[in-house]
Amino acid sequence: MSRKSKGIGAERELIHLFWGTNKWSAIRVAGSGSMKYPCPDVVAGNNIRKLAIECKSSKDTNQYLTKEEVSQLKKFSSKFGAEPWIGVRFDKFKWFFMNIEDLKETDKNYVISLESAKSKGLLFEELIEDK
Amino acid sequence: MSRKSKGIGAERELIHLFWGTNKWSAIRVAGSGSMKYPCPDVVAGNNIRKLAIECKSSKDTNQYLTKEEVSQLKKFSSKFGAEPWIGVRFDKFKWFFMNIEDLKETDKNYVISLESAKSKGLLFEELIEDK
Repeated sequence: MSRKSKGIGAERELIHLFWGTNKWSAIRVAGSGSMKYPCPDVVAGNNIRKLAIECKSSKDTNQYLTKEEVSQLKKFSSKFGAEPWIGVRFDKFKWFFMNIEDLKETDKNYVISLESAKSKGLLFEELIEDK
Repeated sequence: MSRKSKGIGAERELIHLFWGTNKWSAIRVAGSGSMKYPCPDVVAGNNIRKLAIECKSSKDTNQYLTKEEVSQLKKFSSKFGAEPWIGVRFDKFKWFFMNIEDLKETDKNYVISLESAKSKGLLFEELIEDK
């Protein structure tokens, strides 16, 4: 399976999780590559909250985001009126959801290790809890 | 140009309109055909309002929506927390935005004539006005 189709598979898994709650809906965003506007991979909502989620899935023990990806997530979320989240899916683990502030910034990009996701990330059930 | 690519072209035009306001953001929804969940064609938002838009564009003087399309738009909007709208784009005319209540229901589907869009539809500038 290609990296792209694997990424789409992970996003679809996340869409199922949201709809499975019976309280949230979620959609995948189309054509992120073909238009010049910032956009996340997934947008989820209920009657109170809206979440913009950039998704990363990998077999490695580190997930990487470019500074551009993080900047676009911030821009979109601010304009759309949504909370910005990074959803990371390591092989054999459930989804973890990270705040932008909890990403580790390097010279070139942002990195999320499995350890940092475990210690700072929210599980799906925690992410969607009423605040 | 195929009907599908023409439809995507119209949706992209609408995305440009929202981003051009500098107050709204908008995204196209992916894979409406490939997942079993209700979803609109376009979702737009600012810090106050969220709009779920089913888009129709055609050279004909009537635009048709199936009862299933309207039902899915209602379901998604209710769960996501968005206003449901039908965006119609007749050749040589600007976009009109219709409320579901203003659609004409027939035995088989819903129909929007150019005349009904002109008399009952909102122009883009009216759609995005602060309420």
